[in-house]
Order: sequence, then C-alpha cells, then structure tokens
Amino acid sequence: MNPTSLAGKRILLTQAQDFMGPTLVPLLTEMGATVITDDRVLTDPGLPAELVRSAGHVDVLIAHLGVPAATSTAQEGTEEEWRIAFAAMVDPLPRLARAVLPQMIARRAGKILLMGSASALRGMKRASIYSAARGAQLAWAQAVGVEMAPHNVQVNAIAQNLVDNPTYFPAEVQAHPKFKERIKWEMPLGRLVSAQEDAHFAAYLCSEAANCFVGQVFPVCGGWVPR
Amino acid sequence: MNPTSLAGKRILLTQAQDFMGPTLVPLLTEMGATVITDDRVLTDPGLPAELVRSAGHVDVLIAHLGVPAATSTAQEGTEEEWRIAFAAMVDPLPRLARAVLPQMIARRAGKILLMGSASALRGMKRASIYSAARGAQLAWAQAVGVEMAPHNVQVNAIAQNLVDNPTYFPAEVQAHPKFKERIKWEMPLGRLVSAQEDAHFAAYLCSEAANCFVGQVFPVCGGWVPR
Amino acid sequence: MNPTSLAGKRILLTQAQDFMGPTLVPLLTEMGATVITDDRVLTDPGLPAELVRSAGHVDVLIAHLGVPAATSTAQEGTEEEWRIAFAAMVDPLPRLARAVLPQMIARRAGKILLMGSASALRGMKRASIYSAARGAQLAWAQAVGVEMAPHNVQVNAIAQNLVDNPTYFPAEVQAHPKFKERIKWEMPLGRLVSAQEDAHFAAYLCSEAANCFVGQVFPVCGGWVPR
Amino acid sequence: MNPTSLAGKRILLTQAQDFMGPTLVPLLTEMGATVITDDRVLTDPGLPAELVRSAGHVDVLIAHLGVPAATSTAQEGTEEEWRIAFAAMVDPLPRLARAVLPQMIARRAGKILLMGSASALRGMKRASIYSAARGAQLAWAQAVGVEMAPHNVQVNAIAQNLVDNPTYFPAEVQAHPKFKERIKWEMPLGRLVSAQEDAHFAAYLCSEAANCFVGQVFPVCGGWVPR
Repeated sequence: MNPTSLAGKRILLTQAQDFMGPTLVPLLTEMGATVITDDRVLTDPGLPAELVRSAGHVDVLIAHLGVPAATSTAQEGTEEEWRIAFAAMVDPLPRLARAVLPQMIARRAGKILLMGSASALRGMKRASIYSAARGAQLAWAQAVGVEMAPHNVQVNAIAQNLVDNPTYFPAEVQAHPKFKERIKWEMPLGRLVSAQEDAHFAAYLCSEAANCFVGQVFPVCGGWVPR
Repeated sequence: MNPTSLAGKRILLTQAQDFMGPTLVPLLTEMGATVITDDRVLTDPGLPAELVRSAGHVDVLIAHLGVPAATSTAQEGTEEEWRIAFAAMVDPLPRLARAVLPQMIARRAGKILLMGSASALRGMKRASIYSAARGAQLAWAQAVGVEMAPHNVQVNAIAQNLVDNPTYFPAEVQAHPKFKERIKWEMPLGRLVSAQEDAHFAAYLCSEAANCFVGQVFPVCGGWVPR
Repeated sequence: MNPTSLAGKRILLTQAQDFMGPTLVPLLTEMGATVITDDRVLTDPGLPAELVRSAGHVDVLIAHLGVPAATSTAQEGTEEEWRIAFAAMVDPLPRLARAVLPQMIARRAGKILLMGSASALRGMKRASIYSAARGAQLAWAQAVGVEMAPHNVQVNAIAQNLVDNPTYFPAEVQAHPKFKERIKWEMPLGRLVSAQEDAHFAAYLCSEAANCFVGQVFPVCGGWVPR
Repeated sequence: MNPTSLAGKRILLTQAQDFMGPTLVPLLTEMGATVITDDRVLTDPGLPAELVRSAGHVDVLIAHLGVPAATSTAQEGTEEEWRIAFAAMVDPLPRLARAVLPQMIARRAGKILLMGSASALRGMKRASIYSAARGAQLAWAQAVGVEMAPHNVQVNAIAQNLVDNPTYFPAEVQAHPKFKERIKWEMPLGRLVSAQEDAHFAAYLCSEAANCFVGQVFPVCGGWVPR
C-alpha cells in the first residue's frame, strides 16, 4: 500500500472550524481518512478526555489549537490575555496526551501532529504572549516525540506562519499595504503559503510515510525562518 | 570604560538561593554590580511588581526562575505538576516585564537576561512538562527582545543544560553511573559545564558589551545542542 | 490533479547507482516521473552541463552527490581527501545550477532538491572533511533557494543522517555493536531511517505540493538533530 | 585570575589588515594578549604551516579568512569566483588545523576561533558562492570542535553579519538608502553591530572563561538570524 495514503485512518481534529480546519477536513477526508471533528476551543479542562473518549479509536490526533493573537506590548499585556492564550493553546496539550496516548502505546502505533507556529522560532513585535504559548507547544512536542518514539508513536509539529487562513490572515489584513511590504521583505516565498500546501504537508506527516520523524518541528512559512 | 565591566550596575536577581544564584551573586558583585536579590519562587502574582518596586532602579533583571523538573511521562503527568511548572517559571515573566520595562524604556537603557534551559531546544524523555515551560520562556524572550530593541533595551536568554548546579544536578545525580554514561554520549564537552563558566557568560550578557544582542538564545550546554 | 503526484515530471538524478539512488529511481518512477539518470561522480567540470544538455527538459534536478566520508582527524586529514570531497560533492553544484536554472527560470517552474547531510548540522568526530563539504551544500541550497523563489523555482535540501543506504551504512557497519550503541544513544527513533521513508519524503519535495518551500533544509535523521 | 583575561595569551590572527582585523588587534592587545599577525590572504597552500611555524607557541588561532563576496546569481557565477572564495576562505582551514592542532593537543590546551558568517545560516540573494564557502567553514568548526573537545582544545565560530567593517560594509554601502531600508526590515537591532561589540565577543571566546563551548556557532548579527 502507498504509505502516504490515509485510507482507513481515524484522525481526530480539534477546533475544526478554525485556523486550518476548513482546509484540513476535506483534504484528509479525500485522502481516505475518517476525520472526527470537534469545534470547541478546549479551555475546559474536562473536554480533551471527553473528546477522545467519544472518538474511540484514534490513529492520529491533530492538536490544532489556536486563538487570535493578542497584540499587546510586553509592558501592556494583561493577565487575562496571557491566561486566555495558555488556556486555549497550551494547557490542553497534556490533557490530550493523557487521554489519547494510552491507546496508541497499547497498539504500538499512533501519531500526534501539533499544528504549531513559527512565531516561536523567530521573535516578532507585539507577539510575546502568543509566541510564549506557541513556544511551550513546540518544546512540548519535541519532548513527547522523543519520549514516545520507542512506543512507535510519532509526535511532531508544524511551525507555520504566513499561511493563508481566516483565523490569522483575514482579507482585511492581507489587503493592507504594510502587510504587502512585510511579505516582500520578510518572506522569501513572496506570497502567503496556501492553506492547501500547508494541509498537504500536514497530511503527509499524518501518514505512515512519516514514521521516521519523531519530536521534529517543521517550519512551513515560505522561508520566514530558514530552518 | 571597559564595556564588559558591571561597575555601577544594579542587577535584580530572582530566586537567588536556587539554581545558578549561589554562583551568580558573588561573581556579579565581584565584577562591580550591586546585586539586589530575592529568594522566593515567584508563584504569587503580586510578587514581581513588589520586587521591582522595592528594588528601585534596575539596570538588569536576571529572570532566574527554576523549580525541580517533574519527571512524569506524558501519559502520567498531572495537572498539578503542569500548574506548578508554569506558575513558577512562565507566568512570572510577563509580570516581571510589566514591572521593570517602563523604567528601562524611559531611560532608553536596560536589559533582561533570562536564565533558560536547553531542554526547550532538544527533546528529552520524561521532561515534557518542564520542557514546555522552558519553551514558553525562550520564545517569550525572543519576542520581547525584538520588541524592546528599538528602545535600546536588550532581552536575551541563556539556554543551559548540564551545568553543575545544586537544583538540577545534585551530587547523588552526578555520582550515578548512568549519568556518567549520558555525559559521555550526549555531551561533546565530556564534563558538566561549571557554574563559574555559566555565570561568567551571564555576566558578559549583562554588560554593555552585549548591547548588540537582541532576542537571542545562547545555548550553554557543552555541545548538547549544536546551536 | 493531486499535487503530490509526479506524473509527467522529468526528474534528473545524478550518481543514480549510489547512496539513495537505488531507492529513489523505482519510487519516483512508480509515482509517475520519468527519471533521467547518470551514474558518474561529477568531478569532471564539464559533466554537469553535458548531463543537463542531454537530459533536455528537466522539471526537477535531484542534486545527489556523495562519496564515502574520509574518517581522518583534523590534524591528519590530507589535501587529497579534502580535494576529493569538495570536487565530488561541492564544486558540481554551481555547475549544475548554471546548466539547469536557465530553462527553469524561462518556464517559471522547476525545482532543485539537494540530497544533503545532517552532518553539517551537528558535529561529529573524524568527519570534519565530509561535514565541511556537506555544510557548503546546505548553505548553498539556502542561498539559491531564496534567490530563485521569485522565479517560481524551488531549491531545498534534505539533511539526512542514519538513513539505511549502502554507501554510508553497509551491513558490516550496521552489525557492529558500537554502531548499535550509537543508535540507542544518539537516535531518538531507535532505528535507522529506512531508505523508503527518505525517498518518499524526497518525492514529496519534488512535487507541486512542495511549492511553498524555498531555501529550506529538512533534517531526515530520526531525531539525531532536533530541527 | 580573571578567566576572561587574555594576559599572557599568544593569539595568531590571519588576514590581520582585513575584515575585523583592525579592531581585533588593538583590543586583544589591550586585554593582555600578544597578537601575532599575518596580512596575507592564505590562498597559497604552504602559507598556513609557515605561519604557524614562525608564530611558535600559539594559544589561540583566530581563523579570520574573508574576501569580498561575489554577487553573481546562481546561473551566472563563474568557476573563477567559486575558486577564489573557496581557496581563500575554506581550503586554508584544514591546513591551519594540521599546523596548529598538534601543539595544542600536546599541551592539552588551546583554541581555534573561526570568524565566520551568518550568511551560512540564512539564505540571501546573489550570495550563493559566498554562503557556500561560509557554510563549509561553520560545519567544519562544529565537527572539529566536537573532535577536539576531549583534548581540551576548543573550536568555535562566530557567525556574523551586519557588523560594521570596511571589508563588507564600506561607507558607500552604508550610505545607500536601500541598505538603510534593509537594516530597518531585516535587523531587529536597528543598526549595524559595531566592530567593537563583535571584537569583545571574540575576545571572550578566546579566553579561559569560554572553555565550556565546543563546536558551537554564535550568531553576531543583531537578530538577523534568531539563533
């Protein structure tokens, strides 16, 4: 069988209406996966376990957690902004892991793909809250990836930025002249990464072909970070 | 004047009895700095502001936040372990920044040096909680570093590991045969980094000579991570 | 059409009998590509141009250049070992680029995929000659990748290590107890990356799905380097 | 004794009139070192050994090799440009190592500091020749650094860019409006790194305080690369 196929895979996708969800669901489905979706932001501590329980058999968990980035400066950011970012993007990770890893370890097969952000790899102004949360995610995926490797469970992360998606780059942002100048200067690719391109790469990382990657972070940002 | 000198600098050091504190305090003092210390773990949300207020003029804040690492696996780690790690090592950062940055921005001079961990740069087993917290720290320092650069305020981080210190490598750990084998295999340096070496590098990054570094992460781990 | 397909692509592969060649050729062919192969080490300065000329239309050039690594120490390595490594692995790159880029720029479509080495990303003993040559390759791919991006030509690199292949890991190396201990300590994956896994990833990077990657280096080494 | 001092150190500096030389010589001297200089580009294969022989006891070799960067595109660069860059910046490295390492290994003490370039860490247009040569340098330093560590000989590299120096950023380049816009967009620091700042950091890496760094690459580029 083609190891890049997702035929027969049961993929659990969180926050399926946001961020990359609207592109991921049809693509993964088209590639043969059964995509089990949930649309809630996972701030409630009980949700991750509930989600996994009701999903049943999960071959791949796509940890897809994103909320609009606070744009406060470091001296102005509030406790509330910090709490929201971590509650939605960071705290659910260990809960998801506790819920889903036992079945994967028992089967000696499974994957977690974190849809993370390159903002953790390169500093940006007015993004310290968001970047900190994203940094926790990537370091977590690296550590759990190394830990789970002997169980034949692969945990990896995409670190994306400047990918066309309605959560972070709505039309009004893209239309702004300053944004166009930013693309020109900061992005070797010269255009946003398309949602399709990002989703195809995610699909690859969900497949058996990617069994060799463990605890690895893959930038998907058109050259915004070099590696 | 020698730009590597710390003469006349007022340096605020948190958790001064732990981790690198016992080495940093005498060295920074010997190099001419006035070191203002506090010994508490900064879990209480009000402490950072109180600390900075009572310190008065702060030229350099050394954000030195560390608690013993939980060693649970990803499937076993508890909410409590997660909460402790983030409450002690991550949540204080924005509070410290809100408290100390305004005076630095006003003077157009100042530095924050984060004593972070290389565990955020390379995955380790049974370290996902700790690594996640350390990852939030490094990404935060990168972002705030880029944001503060135009104010002539430099925010950087040391990402250390395998540095001889009583918090993370007490004598009984170092004496263990498995630890010696780990050093042999994982650490090109072939020995722990000494606390003095780490502290000297930190002192350099606190000095005017380091004004050119912004939002940068410096591994200090004897080659455990290559860059 | 499925953007991960290679149907109709003309792929030029150098040193097709060595290294990853025996796995790449059948896989790329099976995925629909016409693979044009050459078996020579490209030391002769005139070969790259000749190769491209006789290949005609080239959609993707796989710059697949490898010779067995010298294992001399830095104080013992010879001029001859250095010259051989650079003549075979480094000097052909700009010649290949001069030969193949004009047609890609003219068509505003094309790719170069460098099959590079992670030895350029992490130091190893007795590998300075080899690593230096591999470092030249990766930096070259990053630079040409940024330069070619506006032409819609994508240049990227795989940085592999510990991938099962007869050039670098023949059976007698794999059977050695020291090698097994090395895998255990240095490689989170716990086994060599299979040639198939590496080749599938290379195939992905040759496809239209990978148009968003420019000047990027992808480690394929089972976690031997974290990113 | 202060481990950051260079008192009594004999430092051999190559190409001492170029690049960072005019700043390094007086600073290292002021810090107590005896600086042995040579002004030639080391293209001649016999020069490195001759240099080391006539220098006698060398505590630290600063491998400081730089020639103006070719600015050809990848499709236009010539054999001659490639040959000049590698002959001046890359090929001398193993010759210097063969000449200077034996005395360091014998004494179980010594350092090589490579003054390298961040152009090997991030792609730039019209810089593929130069970047490739610089990439060979950095990968070489990483490998030799790991190899020499057990001998208590430290080999490390600075990867600089956008440091004020007459070889790469003469006044006419700095005055150009496009250059100013580049600084604004690409460099979080918002100004060139001063030659003094770079030289102070190099001096630190030449001192005993830096004995804990092996095979490490330190970006000095005002945030142009994040790590």
